[in-house]
Amino acid sequence: MSFSVAVSGATGYAGGEVLRLLAGHPEARIGAVTAHSSAGTRLGVLAPHLHGLADRIVEETTVENLSGHDVVVLALPHGASGPVAAQLPAETLVIDAGADHRLTDPAAWERFYGTEHAGSWPYGLPELPGAREQLRGARRIAVPGCYPTSALLALVPGFAPGPGSDGGLLEPDDVVIVAASGTSGAGKSVKPHLLGAEVMGSMSPYGVGGGHRHTPEIEQGLSRAAGTAVQVSFTPTLAPMPRGILATATARLAAGVDADAIRDAWDAYYTDEPFVHLLPEGQWPTTGSVLGSNHAVLQLAVDEHAGRVVVCCAIDNLTKGTAGGAIQSMNLALGLPETMGLDLQGVAP
Amino acid sequence: MSFSVAVSGATGYAGGEVLRLLAGHPEARIGAVTAHSSAGTRLGVLAPHLHGLADRIVEETTVENLSGHDVVVLALPHGASGPVAAQLPAETLVIDAGADHRLTDPAAWERFYGTEHAGSWPYGLPELPGAREQLRGARRIAVPGCYPTSALLALVPGFAPGPGSDGGLLEPDDVVIVAASGTSGAGKSVKPHLLGAEVMGSMSPYGVGGGHRHTPEIEQGLSRAAGTAVQVSFTPTLAPMPRGILATATARLAAGVDADAIRDAWDAYYTDEPFVHLLPEGQWPTTGSVLGSNHAVLQLAVDEHAGRVVVCCAIDNLTKGTAGGAIQSMNLALGLPETMGLDLQGVAP
Amino acid sequence: MSFSVAVSGATGYAGGEVLRLLAGHPEARIGAVTAHSSAGTRLGVLAPHLHGLADRIVEETTVENLSGHDVVVLALPHGASGPVAAQLPAETLVIDAGADHRLTDPAAWERFYGTEHAGSWPYGLPELPGAREQLRGARRIAVPGCYPTSALLALVPGFAPGPGSDGGLLEPDDVVIVAASGTSGAGKSVKPHLLGAEVMGSMSPYGVGGGHRHTPEIEQGLSRAAGTAVQVSFTPTLAPMPRGILATATARLAAGVDADAIRDAWDAYYTDEPFVHLLPEGQWPTTGSVLGSNHAVLQLAVDEHAGRVVVCCAIDNLTKGTAGGAIQSMNLALGLPETMGLDLQGVAP
Amino acid sequence: MSFSVAVSGATGYAGGEVLRLLAGHPEARIGAVTAHSSAGTRLGVLAPHLHGLADRIVEETTVENLSGHDVVVLALPHGASGPVAAQLPAETLVIDAGADHRLTDPAAWERFYGTEHAGSWPYGLPELPGAREQLRGARRIAVPGCYPTSALLALVPGFAPGPGSDGGLLEPDDVVIVAASGTSGAGKSVKPHLLGAEVMGSMSPYGVGGGHRHTPEIEQGLSRAAGTAVQVSFTPTLAPMPRGILATATARLAAGVDADAIRDAWDAYYTDEPFVHLLPEGQWPTTGSVLGSNHAVLQLAVDEHAGRVVVCCAIDNLTKGTAGGAIQSMNLALGLPETMGLDLQGVAP
Repeated sequence: MSFSVAVSGATGYAGGEVLRLLAGHPEARIGAVTAHSSAGTRLGVLAPHLHGLADRIVEETTVENLSGHDVVVLALPHGASGPVAAQLPAETLVIDAGADHRLTDPAAWERFYGTEHAGSWPYGLPELPGAREQLRGARRIAVPGCYPTSALLALVPGFAPGPGSDGGLLEPDDVVIVAASGTSGAGKSVKPHLLGAEVMGSMSPYGVGGGHRHTPEIEQGLSRAAGTAVQVSFTPTLAPMPRGILATATARLAAGVDADAIRDAWDAYYTDEPFVHLLPEGQWPTTGSVLGSNHAVLQLAVDEHAGRVVVCCAIDNLTKGTAGGAIQSMNLALGLPETMGLDLQGVAP
Repeated sequence: MSFSVAVSGATGYAGGEVLRLLAGHPEARIGAVTAHSSAGTRLGVLAPHLHGLADRIVEETTVENLSGHDVVVLALPHGASGPVAAQLPAETLVIDAGADHRLTDPAAWERFYGTEHAGSWPYGLPELPGAREQLRGARRIAVPGCYPTSALLALVPGFAPGPGSDGGLLEPDDVVIVAASGTSGAGKSVKPHLLGAEVMGSMSPYGVGGGHRHTPEIEQGLSRAAGTAVQVSFTPTLAPMPRGILATATARLAAGVDADAIRDAWDAYYTDEPFVHLLPEGQWPTTGSVLGSNHAVLQLAVDEHAGRVVVCCAIDNLTKGTAGGAIQSMNLALGLPETMGLDLQGVAP
Repeated sequence: MSFSVAVSGATGYAGGEVLRLLAGHPEARIGAVTAHSSAGTRLGVLAPHLHGLADRIVEETTVENLSGHDVVVLALPHGASGPVAAQLPAETLVIDAGADHRLTDPAAWERFYGTEHAGSWPYGLPELPGAREQLRGARRIAVPGCYPTSALLALVPGFAPGPGSDGGLLEPDDVVIVAASGTSGAGKSVKPHLLGAEVMGSMSPYGVGGGHRHTPEIEQGLSRAAGTAVQVSFTPTLAPMPRGILATATARLAAGVDADAIRDAWDAYYTDEPFVHLLPEGQWPTTGSVLGSNHAVLQLAVDEHAGRVVVCCAIDNLTKGTAGGAIQSMNLALGLPETMGLDLQGVAP
Repeated sequence: MSFSVAVSGATGYAGGEVLRLLAGHPEARIGAVTAHSSAGTRLGVLAPHLHGLADRIVEETTVENLSGHDVVVLALPHGASGPVAAQLPAETLVIDAGADHRLTDPAAWERFYGTEHAGSWPYGLPELPGAREQLRGARRIAVPGCYPTSALLALVPGFAPGPGSDGGLLEPDDVVIVAASGTSGAGKSVKPHLLGAEVMGSMSPYGVGGGHRHTPEIEQGLSRAAGTAVQVSFTPTLAPMPRGILATATARLAAGVDADAIRDAWDAYYTDEPFVHLLPEGQWPTTGSVLGSNHAVLQLAVDEHAGRVVVCCAIDNLTKGTAGGAIQSMNLALGLPETMGLDLQGVAP
C-alpha cells in the first residue's frame, strides 16, 4: 500500500526529521516538500543530511502544493497549521506536528498561546489508554509535544488502569517533572542564547514556574489517564546536546502502594509496547541510547524515605518526541503495521 | 599574612582546582603537592593547565610530607581523609574537600558510606545560618559536597529565619531536587560510562530513588536551617559538559505565603553575600556564566497553579561546589577577607 | 538471498555499528554475537542503543561460535583477527574490520604494528580504482581504517586516472593531511585522556610526525592509485564529538593543472558513486550531515596563491569509516546491490 | 601606576574577555563600557559571567564616551575601529582588538577586506622578533588575529634568527596550516550555522583555498620574521567547543636541518617566554589546558619520511588569541611588568 506524503515546514528540525524517517519508510512516496522563505532552494543546501533528497527543490507552503497527497504533515510554527489544515480535504490524512490541535480546552490554549483555539484532534501518543483506537483510521492527528511525550510515558502507568493495576498508584496533586532537552527542541530560529558558544558547556532552565506551554498538555494527558485532575509542576532545562530529552518525573505514592506494585504496573503497562522499554533494574536510561530512534527507555525507583517514585524517561525529542511519533501514528491511521519504517536502532556512541 | 598550604590528592579534579585557586591567592604559598600513584611526576604532565606549577614534583601523600604547613587541604577519596587528618597537629588548619567529615549523624554516614564515621567538622558553606561564626578561627573544615552546595543555596532562604523572613516559608516534607552535573563531578577515575564518546550528546540519571550520598547531606543542611526535619527527594543527572551544576529545587509554599514573600526572603537573604546572586526577574541562571568562578546564581518562580516555588541555582561544581568553597572557608578560618583570591569572573562563553 | 552473519568484538564501537547496520539490512540474519570479557551478558546492557537486539546474549569469541555462518565480521584489536581468520573456512566471507590485513607491505606492517604480518586481503574501499572488481565475489575483505577512508576519498581523484582525467593532477611528493576525529575512533577502552571531562571543550593532536599507523595505509592507497610513490605528512587530532572525521588534505597541483581541471576530475570521478558527493561550490562539508550514514561529502578549492588544492572530506568514522564500508563491501562480495541496507540519511542536527 | 581603561564593543565575545581580564588587573580601573545596540542595558544582562561588573550600564560607543581614559580598547567589527581611533588623542593608548590596523600592505587589506586601509600599527604579539621593542611605549597597538597568533607562535622559530638558530630552518614556499577553532571565534552574531544544534557534534571547514582574512596576516608575520616571502596554505575549521584554537602547522625542513636542530631552535626561542611553552617530548598540547589563560603550548615532531616538521600550538582564541594578547601588549606599552594581571592558570577540566 504505497501512499504519497507532502511535508510542509520541511527545512525546520521537525520537518527534516519527518523527511529522514519517510525516506526510510517502505511504503511512503515523498511528494511536495514545502517551506516559506527558502522556497526555490535545493533541499541539499538546507538539509544536507538528507542525502537521498538532496536534489529536491523546496516549494512554497501553499494549499495547492500540499493538495493531492494521501498524507500531509504540517511542521509549522504554532498558529500556522490551523488555517492550512482547514483548507485540506477531509479524506486527506493531516498530521500536525505543531501545537495547534493538541489541547482540548480552548481556555488553556488561549491562556498559553494567546490566539484562538483551532480545535482538538486525536492525540498521537499510541501508548496512552485508548489512543490506538482513536488513531486507527483517523484523518487528523495532533502530534504530541516532545516534553509531554517523555513526561506522559514516564508517568501514565501510575495513573491509568492497565494490565498490572487499577490505576491510581500515584497521588494526582503533587507531580513534579524536571526535564532536560537538547537544543534542537528550540528549533532552528537564530536567537543569541542558542548560539553554539553559549550552549556548549552550559545548562539553563527556562519557562520556570509553570509558564511553559507544554505544562497544560502534560496535565491534560495525565488527567485523562487518571480520570481526575492531575496537577504538575514542570520545569524544562536546556542541555548542551543537539538532541534528546531526559525527563525526571516524581510523584507521591498513593496510600498502600509499594515498590513492587509500582514496578509491576510499569512492567505490565509497557511489556507489549514496541517502542517503550522499562529497563532491567540497575540500568539507567541515557538519551544517547535512543538517538535517532523511536524508542523510549525508562527506569524507576521508589524512594521510601521521601514517599515518592522517581521515573526517568529518555527519548529523542525529534524522533519519538516528534517525527517518529508522527510516523507511528500515521501507520495506525493508514492501517499499516505500527512499526513500519521505524525499525531503527539508536545511533551510539 | 602569608601562609603555607599543602594539597593532597593534587592530581584529581578537586585537588587541581584547589591548586588553581591557591596559585592566584595573594597570601598563599603552595608547599607540598601530594598524590598517590603519580608521586615523582612533574605536575605539568598530570595537570597541564597549572602552568605556574608545571615544574613541581608530586610527592607521596604522607603525614610527613603534609606536616609543617599552616594549612593542609585533603582532596582524597571518602574514607581516606579521616585517618590522615587524625595525625595532623591540632593547630594546623585542615580542610577536608572529601566527604568524611560532613555528616553529623554517624548512622547516616554508615548507611550511605558503609564505613566507620570519622566525625563531624564545621561545615564550609558560609552562607548557611551561623556558619560564618563557626568557620572563623576553625582549624578543621568539612567542605560541602557539590550538589549540597547548589541545593542548599537554592532552598535555605525558604527554611531559615533571615533578614526578610522568620523562616518556614516552605513545607518541609515535600522537597524535590533534580540536579544536572558536569562529568568532572564524577572524578578522574576511568569508568566506561564516563568516556567522552559515551558522555557527549547524552544525559543520564544515576543514584535515583534516594540512593545518592549527597541526599543525607542536603537534608542535614536544610533541617538544621529549618529547625525541623526536612525531607528531600533528590535525583542527580549527568550532563554533557565538563563542569557546572544546575539544581532545580522545588517545594510547596507554606500556608499564606505568596510570591512576593518568597522573592523578598531570597532577596534579603543574599543581598549582602559576595558570591550568591538572585538574578533580576526574567533572567535565568546558566552554568556557563559561573564557569571557573566562585559565584552562584539563582532565579525562582512561584507556580501558583501547582502551589510550589521552583528555584534554580547554577554553580561551578569544582569552584563554588568544591575548591572555591574551600578557599572561602579557609579565608574565614585564617581571619582573611572572605573573598581574597576568589575575585574571579566566569569564563564565558 | 538471505544470509547469516556472526559479529565478533560486538561490544566495541565498531562491532556495535556493524550490528546496527546489519539490523537494518533486509537480507542479513544476525547469528552469533561474540566478545571476550563480557561473554554471557545481555547485549542490551552493553549496547543499549541496539534495541532490536537487546535480548541477545553475548557469546565468547571462539572459532566454534563463529563457524557455520555465511559471513563473519571481525571487529577485534589489531593482531587478534589474523589468528581467528586463519581458522575459518575458505568459503566463509570473512570481513576484518581491524587492521591486520590492510597493508600489503610486510615491512610497513612490522614497522608500525610491531608484530608479524598476517597477510593482505582485498581492500574494502569500493571507490578506489579497481577495488569493486576485487571485492565482487571476494571471501576475505580488509576494511580500511577510518582516517584512510576519508583521506583516500579526498585525494584519489587527483592521482588516479578516471573519467575526467588521466591522473597525475597532483604532485606525489608533498601531500599534507590533517584530520579531526570524534573520540569513538579511539575505541571503548578507558584511558584517562578519553574521559568526557578531558575531551569536551578540548582539541589535541596525537601520533604527530608520521607515527600514526594509518600513515602507511594512506600512502599505500594513494600510491597504488597514482602508480607511483606518494608521500604523505599525516596528523590526526582528537575533536570533542563522539563521531565523525573531517579530513583536510592538500597537495600541490602538477604543472599546467588549473582549478577547472581539478573540479572536473573530482566531479567526474564521483558522479556515479552512491555514497560520495562533491558538494556544489560554496557548500562545505560538515561531519554532522553524515552522522550515522554511509555517505562522504567533499568540497575543494584551489589556492592559486599557494599552488595547492585543498580538499575537505567529512565522513562518519564508524559508518563509512568502518561498519558502513564493511557492509558496502560485503554486499559486493555477496553479489547484492551495493547500497542494500545502507540507504540511511544522516541524523542531524 | 593606576590607569583607566574604556572598552568599546564590550558586549561581544572579545570585549567581554577584555573586561574579564581587566577586572583582575591590579592597576586597571575600568571606565566606560560601551556598545551599540545594547546601550543603556546593565552589563549583568548581556555578560552575566562578569559578576564584578554586573551593575555597570553599557554606554553608546562614541568618541565622547571613550575620551578621557588612559587606555581605550576597541573591540569592534573590522572597518569600525579606524574612524573611531582617528578621533582619539595621540597620547591615549588605543588598542585595536579588531583587524583594521594589522596589515601593513594596503593592497592586501583591500583585497581581503574590500574597504580602504586604515593604516598599520605596532603588532601586539610580543613574542615576534623585535615586537617587544616596538610595543614599549607605543600609543597604538594592533592586536593580532586569533589564528595568526597560534600560527605565528607555531612557526616563527623556524624562520626567525633566534638564540638557537640563524633562522631559515624551514623552506619558505611550502607552509601548510590547518587550524581548528572554537565557535566563539565566529563572534556573537546569530547565524544559522552557528546554532548550538548545528555546531555540537560537527566539524566543518570554511574559507578554504586561501580565502580567509587571516591568511595575509600569517604570511606577513612569517615573512617579516624570515626576511623573505613566506607562502602559506591556510585552512580554518570550526570545532564543537566554545573556545580554543589548535593549529597544526607544517613546513619542509631546509637542507641540512635535522630534528635536533629544530627542537633546539624552538626550545631556545621560547625558553624565557612567560606565556609560550614547548612541552616536554611526548606531551601534546590540548586546548583544554589553556582555557581562560594567556598561555600557548606547543609540541613538534620531525617527520623524516615526509621531510617536514609538524608543529601543533594550542591557545585560547579569546585570551592569548585576543584579549590576553591585548593586555600583554598594553602592559608593555604602559611600562608595566608584561605578565601583570595575566597570571592565570587554565580552567580545566
